[in-house]
Amino acid sequence: MERIRSEQVAARLGQRVRVVGWLQSVRKLGAISFVIVRDGGGTVQAVAGDVAVAALAGCELESVIAVTGDVCAEPQAPGGVELHAIDIEVLVATELAPPVLLNKKLAKLPLPTLLDHAVIANRFPQRRAVFRVGAAAMHGFRAALDAEQFVEIQSPKLVETATEGGANVFAVDYFGRPAYLAQSPQLYKQIMVGVFERVYEVGPVFRAEPHDTVRHINQYTSLDVELGFISDHFDVMAQLTRVLRGMLAEVATACARELALLGVAVPALPEVIPHLHFTEALERLAGPLGEAVRGEPDLSPAGERWLGQWAREHHGSDWLFVTGYPMAKRPFYTHADPDRPAHSRSFDLLFRGTELVTGGQRLHRHADYVAALAARQLTTAPIAAYLEAFRHGMPPHGGFAIGLERFVMQLLELPNIRLATLFPRDLTRLSP
Amino acid sequence: MERIRSEQVAARLGQRVRVVGWLQSVRKLGAISFVIVRDGGGTVQAVAGDVAVAALAGCELESVIAVTGDVCAEPQAPGGVELHAIDIEVLVATELAPPVLLNKKLAKLPLPTLLDHAVIANRFPQRRAVFRVGAAAMHGFRAALDAEQFVEIQSPKLVETATEGGANVFAVDYFGRPAYLAQSPQLYKQIMVGVFERVYEVGPVFRAEPHDTVRHINQYTSLDVELGFISDHFDVMAQLTRVLRGMLAEVATACARELALLGVAVPALPEVIPHLHFTEALERLAGPLGEAVRGEPDLSPAGERWLGQWAREHHGSDWLFVTGYPMAKRPFYTHADPDRPAHSRSFDLLFRGTELVTGGQRLHRHADYVAALAARQLTTAPIAAYLEAFRHGMPPHGGFAIGLERFVMQLLELPNIRLATLFPRDLTRLSP
Repeated sequence: MERIRSEQVAARLGQRVRVVGWLQSVRKLGAISFVIVRDGGGTVQAVAGDVAVAALAGCELESVIAVTGDVCAEPQAPGGVELHAIDIEVLVATELAPPVLLNKKLAKLPLPTLLDHAVIANRFPQRRAVFRVGAAAMHGFRAALDAEQFVEIQSPKLVETATEGGANVFAVDYFGRPAYLAQSPQLYKQIMVGVFERVYEVGPVFRAEPHDTVRHINQYTSLDVELGFISDHFDVMAQLTRVLRGMLAEVATACARELALLGVAVPALPEVIPHLHFTEALERLAGPLGEAVRGEPDLSPAGERWLGQWAREHHGSDWLFVTGYPMAKRPFYTHADPDRPAHSRSFDLLFRGTELVTGGQRLHRHADYVAALAARQLTTAPIAAYLEAFRHGMPPHGGFAIGLERFVMQLLELPNIRLATLFPRDLTRLSP
Repeated sequence: MERIRSEQVAARLGQRVRVVGWLQSVRKLGAISFVIVRDGGGTVQAVAGDVAVAALAGCELESVIAVTGDVCAEPQAPGGVELHAIDIEVLVATELAPPVLLNKKLAKLPLPTLLDHAVIANRFPQRRAVFRVGAAAMHGFRAALDAEQFVEIQSPKLVETATEGGANVFAVDYFGRPAYLAQSPQLYKQIMVGVFERVYEVGPVFRAEPHDTVRHINQYTSLDVELGFISDHFDVMAQLTRVLRGMLAEVATACARELALLGVAVPALPEVIPHLHFTEALERLAGPLGEAVRGEPDLSPAGERWLGQWAREHHGSDWLFVTGYPMAKRPFYTHADPDRPAHSRSFDLLFRGTELVTGGQRLHRHADYVAALAARQLTTAPIAAYLEAFRHGMPPHGGFAIGLERFVMQLLELPNIRLATLFPRDLTRLSP
């Protein structure tokens, strides 16, 4: 009999079907046993008598089995159906108990255990749900940009020069020459504005930051966007809002089951996300956090949290743009605000009081790059090949980058970014 | 007046429109000049008198300009229309002539010049067409797999162990520990079959191969697929055929203009791609290439070319699967043919006589991995964390990987893979 997927079982009420997957659990209740089989889509419950269950003798959980049975309605079972009068065939028997039990106890395991055994733990339905949300977010990201004539690019990950700051780069031996892993596709996506006007990239970026926090990993998936012919950073913020709307819509549509399983709802996104200039943000923070904040060049985590709360209360929004961060704290390619040159045409997007996306307008004139680098005691020499693009006609442009794993972490309210990553890389973890 | 994109101009016959982009060329013909402006979509021709053209005084090609004019029919012009009675506004003037001229002469430049100035040369319409085809191929790849319930994954690029062979890896300093850049997501995608049954990944892979050939680059984009619950490699070949059909269809649909510009047609893909066992391939090659080929463990480039010709003549196909390569030449995770254990359940797909895709069935039992590694004088220790997946129920599975740049190169008949890569990395090139 041909196999059907778990998602198709409910539509076959009264028919005999064959599902194939992993033996997730067996629970004996008197003379009958409840067998849960899991496939790539979901789980199916089967009710087995002792004869049927005997086929599983010597098989540990996670054995690969085929279950053939009659589809019966059962409101208590997953999907509202279960299989009766079943036959079980063992396809790949495993003799070893799983290193982690794929049941509710999984969530209580210490994180290192979960990560050490990620190759098995990721099979757990709640873990799979997280990664399906990540895949849907990527899908929604690309679909939103494809619809607006953005072109997808792939940029080099091996580079001669660190563009986002000299320190936190991984060094690579490139045929005897020093090279680095790219911290972002920043210069490439800007250059590609000169080619296609509007580009995006989904790819890994590498940060050798020696931080052991719940929000840092050393390789993450960056969703990068850059677009030309903008007026200022507000065009970039509008673009980001449309992209987020696409991502959230795709997650809501494609992952309704997963969100229900995780007990999470997709947050509302206002038609226009409220925004606040950095100096105004400091003004508002001076009351609750003390006058000293007025002199700060950046927002503290406490400040971001307070602003998140404020946006919730005053705008009914989980989302808040803070614009005009001081130039001193932004990278060399940042465009200053002509009216307030100490402030930038940049923004952070806070989601529930935590920074989620950074972006802004970039410099587009070669002379401005020369000046910006000189102001930082840097020369153009190491990036001359890239800066050539700015000598030959670059329109005003800007963009942003969304860290996929951080997006998933915050959306799903996960306590650690490692839980939003299939096989995370951190200070101590290079495997699996 | 609001800007419209070049693609929209033809639909505005008789109206006054504003296009914004790069000054690609100015050609004076008596009292009038033909001005070509290029935007992210294409080019528009404008006819300018001396007054209008005077606005361009001091502006070099690639300046960013806005051209406002009346849309008139002109069969000779790109898109069948041109702009008359124009005004030109210079938005970003460039004073330096482009390092490479973005006209037909570009193709005659030595490759190193083209690559040194890729940040500008990639703006050339023929170069853009190549990269748009690459983007469409990625899009078609993902769409074909999304439609069959594959889940997209992102795997680590920093790993402890080289999985595809010990030599050709880039070494990375990972917080003082040795690490390597992943040569492929091979083990990860296999492990993820245990999670989602069917997965794919689009991402960079790194090969420290010291080859300076027209077919090798050291970072490329790998389109990776892995699927579970297969019978044998023929299921994988059928999956690959469906994916290729999706990729070619997307290229044909989304890139009709680009293909016309490049003078290339999308090749026909048979309903079922013909296939030939490795031993039968050698039999056929013994005539034309000499009896000595019978003892060869692999196909030579000359052999592949002959087989490509043979497939063309005998099956009317540009495509040919060669199956059953000797186990000796395949990686440790390759599944042997139970009926002919010296041969594998693997395949290469030849396109016009050149290998384009490699794939096959993989081992799925832990004991088989132990044996396969032992036969190669290797232990399981370095990859024990990965092999844990195979201790706990892995179904028969297999997959394949398509090198995006090589796919584009062969599809578009480019003489060098570097021409299919935005910013290629090779033995000597780390920039731009």
